[in-house]
Amino acid sequence: MKTKKFCLTEAQMPTQWYNIVADMPNRPLPPLHPATKQPVTKEQMSAIFADALIDQEMSVERYIDIPEEVQEIYRIWRPTPLVRATGLERALDTPARIYFKNESVSPAGSHKPNTAVPQAYYNRKQGIRRLTTETGAGQWGASIAFAAKHFGLELQVFMVRVSYDQKPYRRLMMQTWGAACSPSPSTLTASGRAALERDPHCSGSLGLAISEAVEMALQHPEDTRYCLGSVLNHVLLHQTVIGQEAVAQMEMAEADPDVVIGCFGGGSNFAGLSFPFLRRKFAEGRDLRVVAVEPASCPKLTRGSFQYDFGDVAGYTPLIPMYTLGHEFQPSDIHAGGLRYHGAGAIVSQLLRDGIIEAQSVPQTETLAAGILFAKTEGIIPAPESTHAIAAAIREAQRAKEEGSPRTILFNLSGNGVNDLSAYEQYLAGTLRDYAPGDAEIRRTVDLLEKII
Amino acid sequence: MKTKKFCLTEAQMPTQWYNIVADMPNRPLPPLHPATKQPVTKEQMSAIFADALIDQEMSVERYIDIPEEVQEIYRIWRPTPLVRATGLERALDTPARIYFKNESVSPAGSHKPNTAVPQAYYNRKQGIRRLTTETGAGQWGASIAFAAKHFGLELQVFMVRVSYDQKPYRRLMMQTWGAACSPSPSTLTASGRAALERDPHCSGSLGLAISEAVEMALQHPEDTRYCLGSVLNHVLLHQTVIGQEAVAQMEMAEADPDVVIGCFGGGSNFAGLSFPFLRRKFAEGRDLRVVAVEPASCPKLTRGSFQYDFGDVAGYTPLIPMYTLGHEFQPSDIHAGGLRYHGAGAIVSQLLRDGIIEAQSVPQTETLAAGILFAKTEGIIPAPESTHAIAAAIREAQRAKEEGSPRTILFNLSGNGVNDLSAYEQYLAGTLRDYAPGDAEIRRTVDLLEKII
Repeated sequence: MKTKKFCLTEAQMPTQWYNIVADMPNRPLPPLHPATKQPVTKEQMSAIFADALIDQEMSVERYIDIPEEVQEIYRIWRPTPLVRATGLERALDTPARIYFKNESVSPAGSHKPNTAVPQAYYNRKQGIRRLTTETGAGQWGASIAFAAKHFGLELQVFMVRVSYDQKPYRRLMMQTWGAACSPSPSTLTASGRAALERDPHCSGSLGLAISEAVEMALQHPEDTRYCLGSVLNHVLLHQTVIGQEAVAQMEMAEADPDVVIGCFGGGSNFAGLSFPFLRRKFAEGRDLRVVAVEPASCPKLTRGSFQYDFGDVAGYTPLIPMYTLGHEFQPSDIHAGGLRYHGAGAIVSQLLRDGIIEAQSVPQTETLAAGILFAKTEGIIPAPESTHAIAAAIREAQRAKEEGSPRTILFNLSGNGVNDLSAYEQYLAGTLRDYAPGDAEIRRTVDLLEKII
Repeated sequence: MKTKKFCLTEAQMPTQWYNIVADMPNRPLPPLHPATKQPVTKEQMSAIFADALIDQEMSVERYIDIPEEVQEIYRIWRPTPLVRATGLERALDTPARIYFKNESVSPAGSHKPNTAVPQAYYNRKQGIRRLTTETGAGQWGASIAFAAKHFGLELQVFMVRVSYDQKPYRRLMMQTWGAACSPSPSTLTASGRAALERDPHCSGSLGLAISEAVEMALQHPEDTRYCLGSVLNHVLLHQTVIGQEAVAQMEMAEADPDVVIGCFGGGSNFAGLSFPFLRRKFAEGRDLRVVAVEPASCPKLTRGSFQYDFGDVAGYTPLIPMYTLGHEFQPSDIHAGGLRYHGAGAIVSQLLRDGIIEAQSVPQTETLAAGILFAKTEGIIPAPESTHAIAAAIREAQRAKEEGSPRTILFNLSGNGVNDLSAYEQYLAGTLRDYAPGDAEIRRTVDLLEKII
């Protein structure tokens, strides 16, 4: 019997999060207050975020305990399986060994609940009654709805109107879990009303939805806080349960990854898988490549510049030192909604700048072809975001074949695509378009995939 | 730490299916040929089904080996978790211990791949090139598409037109896995064309789709066979991996079920969970209640009559000895599409007739309320079919509370509802209707649930 999945017991789950800041050769520069250009203080952030989360945001401790109340909810779906992609290996006829960490098995279908649960927990512990947040395609909104319900918190989600109309199922998931979900722009906030005055048919944007959510939190400091699903240090921190489990599971598999791959939007699933492997690189000097994969149409890591920039379009957030396309960059309408973000966050940007990690960009036709091959060989229909990691893993496996040198590849399957099937429909109908010019490697890979699928 | 999930290793997975026919005090009567009214022979069935599946259909052996090729694919998602529903227990404030077997984690989101995989395997082994089948809501169609792709078989799915139009995501899952999916009635078959001639806007039915699929198989005996996702003995047999795992997992949990519950359409998830527990009842005389839960609007077990009836509307199939509402019964348009079937199959009907199992019916408002409570407390949005089992488990837990007597309840979470969210939307909007009269217990349970959720 060839082992397919490597599973930990609940007793083997990590009990601490790993904070990579403690091990970075160069720590990230501090976020700056937009008005004073001075490092933001805890006090300044406390009107927006729960205090414990700000402490984690600023912490340099290597390990931070996971509260038992959070672990209890993690156990609903964690530990998640690590899977040997034997079907994909066979289809590619590659000497590479390919593994993936399957984060698609969570209640919301992605890795997002890993941070939604502690964020809801710490807010509740502080006596907060209500959370606000924004969501694009709805993966984050569904996850925080699930977590907020668990801790008895009210939740107001501002969902970008175009997604609100196009993705009713994700909205219904939020409502089934008891959250209020409004299309953004809404009439609930001044920034929403202003946008509607300018254009009553405004289809919204993530930046505008963030502005609405932050505004509502700031107006009710007595009982309301805002929360965010990626980019920030504490969010990446919470996701390290993924990589810590994967380190133990790769040992069970008697395999050592040569390359670790994650798709990249704000960085949370990428960091969650890779940081605990980077810990071993820092501490034990292990040889390891870590690759962040972004859409060719939103290439902040491969084509952006490193500078201080806002986290949102309106400029409400602190200035963050990061690779960015500019906070007014309008991403193309690709299906991987979770990767449509202009900036990369402070930690990942510093790691890239220091040459500790690499970045690649992939166009969406290649990612969807990779997603279909994965669905046919491994049985799971991946989220459009996750297909970026799959495409990069396939490229790596092809190189292993061409070079005649085996290697071990590990990627993160950050979510499933059962509520994103219109992307596959367009690919299969031949109407899917790319928003960025292709290169020879892209064409060659897509040709190869189309021959197999 | 309170253990939440009980997980087996791949090495602990069952290697044989359990055939309850070997242990039944009264074996089911044989299926009859519709013309001769004589028991159908293997030869007569071999134009429709693969030979190995007919052997299993007629087998009286207690255990049948699971081929290694099938086990290999099972390992993509199996073994599935057994979960203690601690969140649900707390919300109900019940002395009962509630467990569920989580079959929603499969690639297609339900238990259906457990039989889709061996059906595709045996057809492939016989040299069959193409499969035909029908599907309603699409859970079965998606599962057999996944399995057919794995064994390189072509697949033609006839999907009831009303579902084809209303549930594009399930159709897209089939197409992503490479299946051809046509709305039924289609122009591909004589029965489809005749239906379209009668009514060009015909919205189709499961019975008509079965006729189309069987007809296409019969026209190409050289390389095509038909397959079915429930009702038949060999389908129930394949599903017994569920219950065999659950028996081992309940032992890990140091718990012994007093009552085992499954929702009931054609019987496959119900049988899959309960038959291995009935084995212990037969062999060791254990005390155990086994409850099949059907929609109040399709009450074949609780209000049907036991007689020989056809499996399809058109009368193409053999006559099956079973509880039935009549093969021309038109079920109401409830959301639990998988439970909209007029008959109960031979084995389950015999068990009910002999008093070995019980049956209950539940209206859909109660089931959806139960589903929302489950989503909020256990984090998983259940399929409308599965909410019937949840509703019955909640009734049982309420009785435990009222009687002040603890008990252990086990139910099957046969699938998730991420592609069925319109059911929840209607419930939340207050527009969901029932198709069968309620009784005092129903009203009381719905009131209770509405207070909690």
